[in-house]
Amino acid sequence: MKIVRVNMTDLSIKTEDVPQEWVNLGGRALTSAIVAKEVDPGCHPLGKRNKLVFAPGILSGTTAPNSGRLSVGAKSPLTGGIKESNSGGSAAQKLGRLGIKALVIEGLPQEGKYYNLHISKDEMRLEEEKDLLGKGNYEVVDTLSNKYGKDIGVITIGQAGEYKLLAANVSVKDYHGHIRSAGRGGLGAVMASKGLKYITIDDKGTSPVSAVDKDKFVAASRKLAKALTEHPVTGQGLPTYGTNVLVNIINEAGAFPTRNFRMGRFDGANKISGETMYEYIVERKGKPTHNCHAGCIINCSQVYHDKEGQYVTAGFEYETIWGFGALCCIDDLDIIAKVDQICDDIGIDTIETAVSVSTAMEGGVLPFGDGQGLLNIMEEIKKGSYLGRIIGCGASVTGKVFGVTRVAVVKDQGLPAYDPRAVKGQGVTYATSPMGADHTAGYAVTANILSIGGSINPLAKEGNIELSRNLQIATAALDSAGLCVFVAFSLLDNPEAFDAMNELLGAINGTEFTADDLNELGKFVLKTELGFNKAAGFTEVDDRLPEFFEEELPPHNVTWNFSGEELDQVHAQL
Amino acid sequence: MKIVRVNMTDLSIKTEDVPQEWVNLGGRALTSAIVAKEVDPGCHPLGKRNKLVFAPGILSGTTAPNSGRLSVGAKSPLTGGIKESNSGGSAAQKLGRLGIKALVIEGLPQEGKYYNLHISKDEMRLEEEKDLLGKGNYEVVDTLSNKYGKDIGVITIGQAGEYKLLAANVSVKDYHGHIRSAGRGGLGAVMASKGLKYITIDDKGTSPVSAVDKDKFVAASRKLAKALTEHPVTGQGLPTYGTNVLVNIINEAGAFPTRNFRMGRFDGANKISGETMYEYIVERKGKPTHNCHAGCIINCSQVYHDKEGQYVTAGFEYETIWGFGALCCIDDLDIIAKVDQICDDIGIDTIETAVSVSTAMEGGVLPFGDGQGLLNIMEEIKKGSYLGRIIGCGASVTGKVFGVTRVAVVKDQGLPAYDPRAVKGQGVTYATSPMGADHTAGYAVTANILSIGGSINPLAKEGNIELSRNLQIATAALDSAGLCVFVAFSLLDNPEAFDAMNELLGAINGTEFTADDLNELGKFVLKTELGFNKAAGFTEVDDRLPEFFEEELPPHNVTWNFSGEELDQVHAQL
Repeated sequence: MKIVRVNMTDLSIKTEDVPQEWVNLGGRALTSAIVAKEVDPGCHPLGKRNKLVFAPGILSGTTAPNSGRLSVGAKSPLTGGIKESNSGGSAAQKLGRLGIKALVIEGLPQEGKYYNLHISKDEMRLEEEKDLLGKGNYEVVDTLSNKYGKDIGVITIGQAGEYKLLAANVSVKDYHGHIRSAGRGGLGAVMASKGLKYITIDDKGTSPVSAVDKDKFVAASRKLAKALTEHPVTGQGLPTYGTNVLVNIINEAGAFPTRNFRMGRFDGANKISGETMYEYIVERKGKPTHNCHAGCIINCSQVYHDKEGQYVTAGFEYETIWGFGALCCIDDLDIIAKVDQICDDIGIDTIETAVSVSTAMEGGVLPFGDGQGLLNIMEEIKKGSYLGRIIGCGASVTGKVFGVTRVAVVKDQGLPAYDPRAVKGQGVTYATSPMGADHTAGYAVTANILSIGGSINPLAKEGNIELSRNLQIATAALDSAGLCVFVAFSLLDNPEAFDAMNELLGAINGTEFTADDLNELGKFVLKTELGFNKAAGFTEVDDRLPEFFEEELPPHNVTWNFSGEELDQVHAQL
Repeated sequence: MKIVRVNMTDLSIKTEDVPQEWVNLGGRALTSAIVAKEVDPGCHPLGKRNKLVFAPGILSGTTAPNSGRLSVGAKSPLTGGIKESNSGGSAAQKLGRLGIKALVIEGLPQEGKYYNLHISKDEMRLEEEKDLLGKGNYEVVDTLSNKYGKDIGVITIGQAGEYKLLAANVSVKDYHGHIRSAGRGGLGAVMASKGLKYITIDDKGTSPVSAVDKDKFVAASRKLAKALTEHPVTGQGLPTYGTNVLVNIINEAGAFPTRNFRMGRFDGANKISGETMYEYIVERKGKPTHNCHAGCIINCSQVYHDKEGQYVTAGFEYETIWGFGALCCIDDLDIIAKVDQICDDIGIDTIETAVSVSTAMEGGVLPFGDGQGLLNIMEEIKKGSYLGRIIGCGASVTGKVFGVTRVAVVKDQGLPAYDPRAVKGQGVTYATSPMGADHTAGYAVTANILSIGGSINPLAKEGNIELSRNLQIATAALDSAGLCVFVAFSLLDNPEAFDAMNELLGAINGTEFTADDLNELGKFVLKTELGFNKAAGFTEVDDRLPEFFEEELPPHNVTWNFSGEELDQVHAQL
């Protein structure tokens, strides 16, 4: 395995051995370690001192199930802190098979110049890019699939990235040609600042990454696959309804943020639920069940068609449907699907954009519930108009520009689809994750709502600090392994699945890897990230929710009532 | 003397005795003490927990020369830290004569409602305001002068405030009916958030504030007045050319930030210099010399007419002329004067707006040198268009929206008119002042360029940490006294003037006030402000200049080369 450094200033590409300290790292652990070691915490995120790091997970490129996540890391232009955002798609597995442990993009190009990077077994080359500038992700992917064949791996930015919007995605092609996203934190703007429109990854002539202890690896893979298939969430709920299975669950729990976090239930929930979506998909001959990378056995993705039976979008997620739906009071699934398509195409984070739009609604830019207005805003973002740029720079900037105080952000990152007052463990994660408000960073919905890995009252404080801390640690390790976060559902309930994961992480290097090792890996990641953030100027003041969460949330009329001292215990005990 | 609290939630007005700890404070010392004690440092600046505090200086309302500054304080929506911004005009003296030591605006009104506050000897009343909503400051002042008489004191916000723009001023009428500004830090947005369009202050029937030791006070006043008249800067330079006397001086010093801080000299400097301005004013029958409050004997203001001899603006300052001039490469004084008029009218900080515009120029929104484009942008701000709101939210937001890395801000506040590389003491002030980048907070141009109060090489590091620290302390005290910062020119060179100021501060309370007391007052203010900022989440990382100042600045080819450790010494030794 090698580290590849691409310098955009002198256009050199260098391959280095992996330093001993990073040999056992991958995914988030590696992107965060590299960023923390090599990036000046005080630097401008779009300037020459930032670096954009891609790292496949420790298991990516192997035959382990659901191990195809690609971590992307940098100092975030959205939060100003360290950022790791990971994505499905085929890029991680291809990088793994090519023996690339990390791809580090450094320096700045000549002003206004764009390049593409091609990586294959036999060569790595940078070429100036002109043809695909200004193009959306779907056109980029189609063009490159025609040029290199349908199996080509692509990492790209759309127009949102080129505009350097703070909510711009790094987008990743999946092997169906659809778009997956490392969505949070504006890493697409960092890629644009490096003058990199896209990376093509050709893994022809390579083999899967082989474990040192092959037999143990194969056995553990089978054990994990079996557990995933047998768990009700990963074996039934997610494959059938996708992540959107959550609309009815979270709405029923009274934790479905509606009208810019004013209510916990949305009148139109049923119209946008997973069950309704499933009916539409079947009726319109889309695909209810679908995967985002080879080796995924959960298949939570789907292909959504319009009323005419034409493709609209794939990977149509709960958070997207919540954000453009309940949060903005829009109950039309077809409008939301169209918005999702545009977000994928221009390469912008659906969560951040939705929170921006609801903030703009709060500021009177358009009324809540205005679906056509939302579609118009998406076109504004695509054009890079002034309004489009404001919205595309996220909820914090939008709130400032329109003088709004009800702005649902932590560390300038928009809050996802679970009201922190009614899923308190999730709120603790939003407040304290070094990533800013991030649902995946410690997904307490498990024990708070789904009774997975135990059961902790989502409306009370008790146990939720510990729940979030433990999940933040475990997730940091999962993100490093390259495993899909949904694997956690199974791990939390099934000791066999948990053992299988540790066996995979041991077998790949021919060592023992215990639950303690996993815990230490997760802690290492969090401490590394917290250290960067501290050096970047973050303090405990940044680990707080906006003050409006002291308002009561119907229907349970719960408030956010953690003290600062309580929240500070999350990381004090790492 | 009393503290008046106006609660915008229940519309009550309460008068309180001054607590002992605040009895000897005034101006900045008092606004910062009240904000630090009563405002939650983590609160939203436009939310219910912020307070807007007005305080006349310790000497305001007396007959002491140049003592009519009004301090306005709050948590700043621009910087997120504590803010004191002070203004000339007649409001401070009238509040002083009315016995009001501080006016504290608290709470939030019913959404969308606006009020006006009237204060006179006999009554204080809040009334709902409708007629003057959406109107500019000149119309507000004219209307109220017609209603109450020309002598009425007015504190108001223009459209920029109503839009809650982060660069919105609190504007103050002077006794000619022109507009003075507490310009920095977006306090106009805080006033808007409180639903307060304007405050009228009628001091009919009051007398000047009388000192306990009257004879000493009168003698000290005369001594200070004499010193001000005799000093070449306050007695000749400022009265003749206004603050704009600095264009040629700072340009000659190679410290005149040009083209968004790329060069230290501007080819068009002579076209916008104080000398040129003086010629125009005389030729067009404006007023070259003019004051902003009764008792000012410096008279640095002027009335600028257009080619047709019509009034354009008053108080046409060096920083404004620099910002819309050299920084944006516009060498047409009449265009800049028109822009100044619009800024005064809509109530927006000329420095912040200029740095925003140069940032937008950097981002390709309009070309450098485009005077008509600049005028168009001013109309956009007045309309509250999307572009106008972006620009009006300051350089930091503008930089984010347009993906610009060359953004000249500290603590999100735009840098004023002296390049920190070539006036290093000034750079230390920009970096470390709790106010963000603020030239008045420690005006090292004195010893760096003007050889006032000594002479310290502006291009080298030696002595500049100490220079800035001492000036920050002295300025904090001056701002508390209610003295115009230009008094410092005389104080720094003339021990008699310095003694006179201390005698004034002693005589007013019938006590001794020594140089040590002045030093302690300044330190108290800075420590209070630094304490608030720390609690608001500021760290030493916020006390740094943007990384692009490591570039060499022509013509001296100097860089910004202070280490973090060096900068941290400014406040470590308070």
